[in-house]
Amino acid sequence: MGYSIPMGEFELIERLLPLLSTQEGVPLAAGDDAAVVAVGGGEVCVTVDVLVDGVHFDRAVSTPEDIGWKAVAVNVSDIAAMGGQPRAAVCGLCRPAEVGQADIERLYRGMAEACERWGVSLVGGDTVAGPVLVLSVTLLGDVGPGGAVLRSGARPGDRLVVVGWLGAAAAALAQLGAEATPDPRLLAAHRRPQALPAAGRRLGSAGATALIDVSDGLGADVGRICAASGVRATLDAAVLPVAPGVADTAARHGLDPLALAYGGGEDFALVAALPPEVAHEAATAAGLAEGVPGIVAGEFLGPRDGAPLVTLALADGTEVDISTAGYDHYDREAPA
Amino acid sequence: MGYSIPMGEFELIERLLPLLSTQEGVPLAAGDDAAVVAVGGGEVCVTVDVLVDGVHFDRAVSTPEDIGWKAVAVNVSDIAAMGGQPRAAVCGLCRPAEVGQADIERLYRGMAEACERWGVSLVGGDTVAGPVLVLSVTLLGDVGPGGAVLRSGARPGDRLVVVGWLGAAAAALAQLGAEATPDPRLLAAHRRPQALPAAGRRLGSAGATALIDVSDGLGADVGRICAASGVRATLDAAVLPVAPGVADTAARHGLDPLALAYGGGEDFALVAALPPEVAHEAATAAGLAEGVPGIVAGEFLGPRDGAPLVTLALADGTEVDISTAGYDHYDREAPA
Repeated sequence: MGYSIPMGEFELIERLLPLLSTQEGVPLAAGDDAAVVAVGGGEVCVTVDVLVDGVHFDRAVSTPEDIGWKAVAVNVSDIAAMGGQPRAAVCGLCRPAEVGQADIERLYRGMAEACERWGVSLVGGDTVAGPVLVLSVTLLGDVGPGGAVLRSGARPGDRLVVVGWLGAAAAALAQLGAEATPDPRLLAAHRRPQALPAAGRRLGSAGATALIDVSDGLGADVGRICAASGVRATLDAAVLPVAPGVADTAARHGLDPLALAYGGGEDFALVAALPPEVAHEAATAAGLAEGVPGIVAGEFLGPRDGAPLVTLALADGTEVDISTAGYDHYDREAPA
Repeated sequence: MGYSIPMGEFELIERLLPLLSTQEGVPLAAGDDAAVVAVGGGEVCVTVDVLVDGVHFDRAVSTPEDIGWKAVAVNVSDIAAMGGQPRAAVCGLCRPAEVGQADIERLYRGMAEACERWGVSLVGGDTVAGPVLVLSVTLLGDVGPGGAVLRSGARPGDRLVVVGWLGAAAAALAQLGAEATPDPRLLAAHRRPQALPAAGRRLGSAGATALIDVSDGLGADVGRICAASGVRATLDAAVLPVAPGVADTAARHGLDPLALAYGGGEDFALVAALPPEVAHEAATAAGLAEGVPGIVAGEFLGPRDGAPLVTLALADGTEVDISTAGYDHYDREAPA
């Protein structure tokens, strides 16, 4: 949410932010993966993500259940990126005439499966007629015991932790339409993305100073932590957790597997900044909580001094600027 | 929300309800104007409404600011219909290429105006590209001091209270395209609907046993209280608060002003069930809190015994079944 607006739309959201009203005391955080608001006598994380047919999913590739699952998963990932616990969801649904009741039930079934996976209650919704299938899921969550973890707290010297696999969703897109028998592991990453809220809570409890999920690409999303925190970051290419199957697929299509890993969107891995003395242990624990890699992959540095926001150190010693590597929903550009 | 699904879609929502998952303790109410969930250590009302270009608004009639206002107002009305206090909103927005940045800013400005009017913080959103303009606003609110007021508590003998004006939005639709100079009072009701949360809280505090807002038509929405509560209702046509300008407009177009009042959608009046000993005082206080009529317009009765759910007693002593009078977004039927 917030900065999950497509990258080409940065200017638009900058101009809209002043219009976001600030009733005294209600919004405790905005412009992050989720907002934190004072409501119901406590603090609640809230996030919304909109999925549009032909833009965020392809009904020729994803079943209605897959689409429903994804609509919930992307929001769970936003709550995970606050270190929070997802609790309850509502769904606004715009439904064209050619999408029948059976398909709407299958969409809801997929949402219900994802909700059950992550302990979320699907409590209601609004379904209206319209020319295109649009799902707008809003998810509410509790903040973690140490409070919400924002993007803005990374400090020079903090370690950069990655939890989860990279590159699988982008590699799946490279396969689609091009291969008769796509790698099922990659296809699953595209159709049934896995959010990592248990990892997010571990990272928050361990003292994460900043946290984000990789929705638009590792480079772009680390760049958001850097921009919000006033720091820069460097990552080590040798340790990036490139997902199984990505290297083979990249080789078949003449693509750079590293570029898929640092530029591919929708991996929903988590990136955290953590003090050096706790980073390794927290990374390992967070990975184990979800059954995915949890590694220290780099460091936050300061000051910026005109340097690129995010660089990737390659094996040959060169450094690549990856701060603009990512996916633009408007242009459907390939990963940079 | 929930039953704000178009009337032709009743069967669909009935089939979807079992898919709404019920994690232990989280949803305290669902299938009402808003859901009530346990999150953030307290109870939170949450509702979502989706507005689609060409279905719920017409860009030739409503400005972008009007559309933004309406997207917030319909949700504030849902929270009002729980007796709650609206607090924070997020907006999922699907934006076609022909709707430029300036229009999106104007939409957000209208949302911000409505949020300021009702003390709501607009805390974030997600804007994506797509073929049609869709706004999906989710609103969070506090429950009232006596807890959320559901649709299901009306008892035989309770008085039926109406707070707000009826028929204005339907009369505005009758004028549009047909009159060179539409009545500005009616046009305003269509373009800038007024939600009545202060009235909702008064009714809740006074002991309302059931509460709903008139989004699809008085007959249909009173019918929802009756269906949820296991009662029936009768209303007195002589005291229905028909909005100023409706009678004149109806006369010019050969329409029945009463039919506009009991069958017209989007009036966002509130209907409550209240014990007889407090009904008049509560109705008056709720109306005064918003500067609109607050009247005792009928009574809830039991048992059903095969009688129509909702009847309207006319001046000549006849009774009309108005329980199916309402607006179907799918068919764009005229009010019955």
